[in-house]
Amino acid sequence: MQIAVIGKGLIGGSFEKAARRAGHDALIFDKGDDFRVEGADVVFVAVPPSAVVPVIDAIAPRLKEGAVVVDATGVKGTVCRDLRKYAYEARWVFVGGHPMAGKEKNGYENSDASLFDGASMILTPYPTYGRAPLDMLERLLREMGFARIVYTDPAHHDEMIAFTSQLCHLISSAYVREPLARDHVGYSAGSFRDMARVGAPDPDTWTELFFANRDALLPILERYIARLDDFRGALAANDRGRMHKALEEGVHAKSQFGKGLK
Amino acid sequence: MQIAVIGKGLIGGSFEKAARRAGHDALIFDKGDDFRVEGADVVFVAVPPSAVVPVIDAIAPRLKEGAVVVDATGVKGTVCRDLRKYAYEARWVFVGGHPMAGKEKNGYENSDASLFDGASMILTPYPTYGRAPLDMLERLLREMGFARIVYTDPAHHDEMIAFTSQLCHLISSAYVREPLARDHVGYSAGSFRDMARVGAPDPDTWTELFFANRDALLPILERYIARLDDFRGALAANDRGRMHKALEEGVHAKSQFGKGLK
Repeated sequence: MQIAVIGKGLIGGSFEKAARRAGHDALIFDKGDDFRVEGADVVFVAVPPSAVVPVIDAIAPRLKEGAVVVDATGVKGTVCRDLRKYAYEARWVFVGGHPMAGKEKNGYENSDASLFDGASMILTPYPTYGRAPLDMLERLLREMGFARIVYTDPAHHDEMIAFTSQLCHLISSAYVREPLARDHVGYSAGSFRDMARVGAPDPDTWTELFFANRDALLPILERYIARLDDFRGALAANDRGRMHKALEEGVHAKSQFGKGLK
Repeated sequence: MQIAVIGKGLIGGSFEKAARRAGHDALIFDKGDDFRVEGADVVFVAVPPSAVVPVIDAIAPRLKEGAVVVDATGVKGTVCRDLRKYAYEARWVFVGGHPMAGKEKNGYENSDASLFDGASMILTPYPTYGRAPLDMLERLLREMGFARIVYTDPAHHDEMIAFTSQLCHLISSAYVREPLARDHVGYSAGSFRDMARVGAPDPDTWTELFFANRDALLPILERYIARLDDFRGALAANDRGRMHKALEEGVHAKSQFGKGLK
């Protein structure tokens, strides 16, 4: 297959290298390049959220019949709404995509053919085209290392990601700002390391992501703060029964998790 | 050396096995046993916080001259205050201890000679005895696998642990209770796994630990909630500048961490 990738960063570079590892031809273009996508069967658009629509508008006239275009942004509602104008386009299809993989270090120099090995790829297709383009895309993604392809709609995706990723970054960022953190050496073990790991997300990228997903994220954050505040209230009131009950709810909740948590 | 361990759980069993691995004789006693500590050079007391003082009161008359007694509870203020009555005891010494190691599964059957390999051991000695008993203890602990021995006072220990361990367990317990967590499969990657890992701490044990350390934990939890509430306020007010600034503070804070974070 002919693969084109637009966006020469960690994710774009990894798409390129994983496609090559799978035996396909792959071209990668950075912003400012001439996007030579005419021969591409699949185009991965791995650019910042605000650049996705302009890039796809720019390449639309050059796409060949039957081409599948996939983006890689972490918030799907706005992108899929703005690209809905192409949903009835018969010549090529757009599929919203979100690869559940990353690294703490960004940039093409950190990209890796094995970045997606074992990961999930979430797809939010429009309901206007049949299975054929999705089957082709799914086959390619599995060849590139993805272990699980999840189909959903943009709103459900955004709510899940607000919880499984965005809230974690807020929790961790708030955690590392505690003044005692500077003296952690010798007092910290696994739980500190886990809690601090994603505490320094890039402010430009993540401010954009949080606000692009504000409607989903805000009520989840509010519910989260309310649960923490219940712990605070139990401590403040010296109410051991209330603390015990809240901890029991956590034990129960975790026992209900779907499989897949290692 | 002759080692005695009281408390046949994860930590006690690991003390026993690590001491044996280091070539020492080790006896382990569970509650209800006859604590035959007469020959012991070092006694590790690895029982729940509320049992430490009664156990040490019980063994005090049987300890030999020069014996070092160490506990293993995660909160040091109350234990070290209640055992201060022995601080001027010339025959043997008590040293508050907290091994920074654990597993999600408790019980003797999960204990392991290598549990402490590479870990920190925090010691809160009284200022009433010289270096000799500490030097002996430190040598033994290093033989048992500990990589770092940290000396501090009980109040500083308790404040650090409130942040590096207890707050993490509250954060994680509140996290796993989000109703969306049940559907995480396919939407979760590393940050979700990290955040959920310690979300089901044993309610009996941890209620006791949190309230034993309430004075240190409560203000740290209050500061933490205030930082999360700042994120909430930025989202609610659509204030991107405020969000960006808070995230920048996280990036700066994490860059200031002492070495030792992997």
